[in-house]
Amino acid sequence: MTTIADIRSAASRIRGHVHRTPVMTSATLDRELGAEVFAKCENLQKVGAFKARGACNAVLALDDAAAARGVVTHSSGNHAAALAYAASIRRIPCFVVMPDSAPAVKVAAVRGYGAEIRFCKQSEREAVCAAVQAETGATLVHPFENPFVIAGQGTAALELIEQVPELDAVIAPVGGGGLCAGTAVVVGSLLPRAAIFAAEPKAVDDAARSMASGVRQPRVENPKTWADGLMTGLGAPNFDLLRQHRVRVVTVEEGAIVDACRFFVERTKLVVEPSGATVLAALRAIAGQLRGKRVGMILSGGNTDFAWLRPA
Amino acid sequence: MTTIADIRSAASRIRGHVHRTPVMTSATLDRELGAEVFAKCENLQKVGAFKARGACNAVLALDDAAAARGVVTHSSGNHAAALAYAASIRRIPCFVVMPDSAPAVKVAAVRGYGAEIRFCKQSEREAVCAAVQAETGATLVHPFENPFVIAGQGTAALELIEQVPELDAVIAPVGGGGLCAGTAVVVGSLLPRAAIFAAEPKAVDDAARSMASGVRQPRVENPKTWADGLMTGLGAPNFDLLRQHRVRVVTVEEGAIVDACRFFVERTKLVVEPSGATVLAALRAIAGQLRGKRVGMILSGGNTDFAWLRPA
Repeated sequence: MTTIADIRSAASRIRGHVHRTPVMTSATLDRELGAEVFAKCENLQKVGAFKARGACNAVLALDDAAAARGVVTHSSGNHAAALAYAASIRRIPCFVVMPDSAPAVKVAAVRGYGAEIRFCKQSEREAVCAAVQAETGATLVHPFENPFVIAGQGTAALELIEQVPELDAVIAPVGGGGLCAGTAVVVGSLLPRAAIFAAEPKAVDDAARSMASGVRQPRVENPKTWADGLMTGLGAPNFDLLRQHRVRVVTVEEGAIVDACRFFVERTKLVVEPSGATVLAALRAIAGQLRGKRVGMILSGGNTDFAWLRPA
Repeated sequence: MTTIADIRSAASRIRGHVHRTPVMTSATLDRELGAEVFAKCENLQKVGAFKARGACNAVLALDDAAAARGVVTHSSGNHAAALAYAASIRRIPCFVVMPDSAPAVKVAAVRGYGAEIRFCKQSEREAVCAAVQAETGATLVHPFENPFVIAGQGTAALELIEQVPELDAVIAPVGGGGLCAGTAVVVGSLLPRAAIFAAEPKAVDDAARSMASGVRQPRVENPKTWADGLMTGLGAPNFDLLRQHRVRVVTVEEGAIVDACRFFVERTKLVVEPSGATVLAALRAIAGQLRGKRVGMILSGGNTDFAWLRPA
């Protein structure tokens, strides 16, 4: 199980390769929620998402022989760009297996970092990934179940609580659960009285049902959500960590996700992708519990094609 | 003529009422331009634009008797919101005369700060404004010719050169010329060897023609440009200040403005309105002169309805 020590090691390992992202506030939002909200801007992170943290930690932790054979992953997008970025730092090969449905902006980002892309159907991702491993000897860096990835993602929350003292609650989005699990370890270990929330689209609510039932539920097949980074099912170690640190999952409607995206671009002038904007949608849903509290929210990424901005 | 002392006074006067906005950098942009570019993020300013600076300075400089009668302006948008914000700080009435064509997002912003709006045709703005003055005794705060407004706008550049040492050049957009004149005074006074550039849409190039001819040219009537904040003609004191500090105007095409807006949202995750994005379009146009230089650019605002994002 990932510990705070793993996350501190990750922070040392990736320093200089990722941004210490700023924390922003909005008087408008604080007024609306009756709380003090602190946004950790991972949308301003390298590659436009927190995923740079986990990928850098995993790549930098490889021994030289393994590193020389390269790394491979299957990913809905941000992890792919992140792994390509991390591999480029270490000048090693990177292979990315991506679904045909991946947003064009994410495909371009991966190519821009010099990775080799292999497209396939969503359902064939793992098989194609295994074939690349067999062919090249590359190390699989799973987007959310790899312990170095989980520890790396936790460094965002570690920075946040250094930047903002005395938080009463922290919220992160949950998909596969790498960011959420890393956040839970940090907050559970260093701020034991603080509440830990996870934001999940109602359309893909396996994490909410897993936490409610105590048994990890299968992923939702072909979910329809704007939050393309949260379509995957909750990972096994991630689920254990969420249980250990008593994370409370808040599910959100699609309309609330779009409203949150719009709030960010219109009022804060920040581009937050739908997956990241779920945290604001969730805070709005539980505003009654937050009055007078100091709340940290992790804006996980900013990579989007803005389709949600067009009038329906 | 506005001096650096006026701008330092403005900085003291408005402190605590406006943000000390962050300066951001982009490795991608630096690579593209072969220069080090520092973006002063006035899109993250109160009311979403540098205009908060000038309006606060003008309102806070009023004596109590004048302040009690309120303030009035005609504006294409950001100055209106800014004056409404400044008036709300001092709890005095604010009247705003706006063209019918003002973007909805800007109208909503002005209303949100509690100002009273009077709509009129673009051509009748000054007459309607005079009528409001006569009726209420409110003080006119001109959007760019008022000396307190010019001094206030200059505080953005003053902060920028405190935040980033040894700049070789600074660029700001030019419309009426409040920001550009204030910037010119700061850079001309404190960094006498630095180049001062102004970015102007080709579609409304009166500043470029004024500077080239040495005679202030009339405003372009009904210009068609994405940069709705730069449609007005260069003001008289502004022109004199641009001449005094030898500002070089760079004109930019509409397509380059849209490309720059897209670059900001896609690569930097910042919303920059078309008027503000002109500075990047201009830097791209003169990249050959900037190799190896340290360049400050003032991203003037982030208020936009994103119409430029839609496919044509």
